[in-house]
Amino acid sequence: MSKFLLYGSVALDTIYTPYGKGEEILGGSATYAALAGRMFSTPVLVGCVGEDFPPSYLEFLKESGISLEGLEIKKGKTFRWVARYGENPNQVEVLSTCQNVIEDFFPVLTPPLREISIVFLANNSPSAQLDLIRQVNSPKLVIWDTMNYWIENYRQDLEKVLPYVDIALLNDEEARRLTGEFNLIKAGKALLKRGIKGVVIKKGEHGSLYISPEDFFLLPAYPVEKVVDPTGAGDTFAGAFTGYLAKEDTLTFSRLKKALGFGTILASFCVEGLGVERLKRLKREEVEARWENFQRMMQF
Amino acid sequence: MSKFLLYGSVALDTIYTPYGKGEEILGGSATYAALAGRMFSTPVLVGCVGEDFPPSYLEFLKESGISLEGLEIKKGKTFRWVARYGENPNQVEVLSTCQNVIEDFFPVLTPPLREISIVFLANNSPSAQLDLIRQVNSPKLVIWDTMNYWIENYRQDLEKVLPYVDIALLNDEEARRLTGEFNLIKAGKALLKRGIKGVVIKKGEHGSLYISPEDFFLLPAYPVEKVVDPTGAGDTFAGAFTGYLAKEDTLTFSRLKKALGFGTILASFCVEGLGVERLKRLKREEVEARWENFQRMMQF
Repeated sequence: MSKFLLYGSVALDTIYTPYGKGEEILGGSATYAALAGRMFSTPVLVGCVGEDFPPSYLEFLKESGISLEGLEIKKGKTFRWVARYGENPNQVEVLSTCQNVIEDFFPVLTPPLREISIVFLANNSPSAQLDLIRQVNSPKLVIWDTMNYWIENYRQDLEKVLPYVDIALLNDEEARRLTGEFNLIKAGKALLKRGIKGVVIKKGEHGSLYISPEDFFLLPAYPVEKVVDPTGAGDTFAGAFTGYLAKEDTLTFSRLKKALGFGTILASFCVEGLGVERLKRLKREEVEARWENFQRMMQF
Repeated sequence: MSKFLLYGSVALDTIYTPYGKGEEILGGSATYAALAGRMFSTPVLVGCVGEDFPPSYLEFLKESGISLEGLEIKKGKTFRWVARYGENPNQVEVLSTCQNVIEDFFPVLTPPLREISIVFLANNSPSAQLDLIRQVNSPKLVIWDTMNYWIENYRQDLEKVLPYVDIALLNDEEARRLTGEFNLIKAGKALLKRGIKGVVIKKGEHGSLYISPEDFFLLPAYPVEKVVDPTGAGDTFAGAFTGYLAKEDTLTFSRLKKALGFGTILASFCVEGLGVERLKRLKREEVEARWENFQRMMQF
């Protein structure tokens, strides 16, 4: 199976939702992205956890077909995140974020890992993203995410990452803040002017759009009747997107559209369970069935 | 050309946008719906204006292929609406609404108008909608819109209209208030349980969805880079949708999907100009070109 590098966080999340709560459950951007990406390729997770990280979680990730070659166990505590969702799953209150071991973590890639040419830089400090991408010998496809916090407070660092980015994968708010354009098509075009080859703007329950100098694609979200927990949906989207693209050598617009489609499908499963619960027990046949159904729902 | 009855308001709007303002310009739900619907069928406008309504506007409507057989000119002033939009076109501040002549207007259909079997009940008081639909001899397809004001304050009247409705065409907020369901699929299903055959939920810039006991369809909005004025976009959508369906006798799921597609396209033109300005100068070739483009943008 083809591989892709996945640099992001592995966390212990505590999540309160109207449908139940999870305490110190497996979370983090890299976890969600890896659990989605493994459906198509082998995610090579780069990141770190603390000594308190449950061995059963490591075991689960390994058994799921995720390579942990790039995951370090460091002295200290694992990254922790606590949040509460309301009846409207778009309303999230982040109660606490403790970076812990990832605070000053700058991973050093081993020689084999430097050879992996497809990379997803999940949300992280821009300096950490820059440090990582510079270690990759010949990056062929770099997919990049960030968040408002970095856009607002680490703009200069972030600007240094952009020249390495092939495809930016942002949510609507991030695209707006990064470019100062309210209209998402204008925001996308502004990013293309910066030399990024393609821009995916994720609008959560409202779908996504893709814009490149040559192409344009529109995608609704897959309809979900009961959103239990939206945590990680964006990372899941990105992981499936990258994993699907990593499967083959050539990147065509047709493949890219399918990658967006599978990103959408995997995200729709993600939100149906608390934490990674739904992704954990997800079967390939379920993904295929939803994919068929999705195409039908959009066909004139 | 086939006809459809269109019962709604004709107004004089004063609209402030960051891109310009319009004073006492032609507006109203029936106006927008008619200017869109005329692309496919002949809208027969039912409503009333005051004596102060500019004859040039009447002339323009007639020349646009809209039948004014059902439009009365009453003693008094025309319905007026004043609103201001911010940089974010979703933020609207309604500065004033003066119903004037439409306040106690209950139209009486002439015998030929009672024979028209396809009806769009644009936003109006439920009692006025009920009164109108009861005058139609054999309604074949009744498409219905409303707004939060009626849902909140005239619930009992509104419940009496529902048994006549074939397709409800609501925006997301209206669907939520009417059913008490936050999730739009659940809201749609709740309306189907009331006996409505199909539910279209419009999400503005985020597209729309259709749900019936047998079918489901998802549609993104057509991407527009510069939204000048969103006034009337929902009515435009509904007018094109109804006009397209009125064109032929049989209602298939395939036709219904195309009707939603053309509703989307016409609405995308509507928001590009102040008031009805863009719809006014819209050419059939432009509609066709955008329709081709739209299908391409959504195709895997």
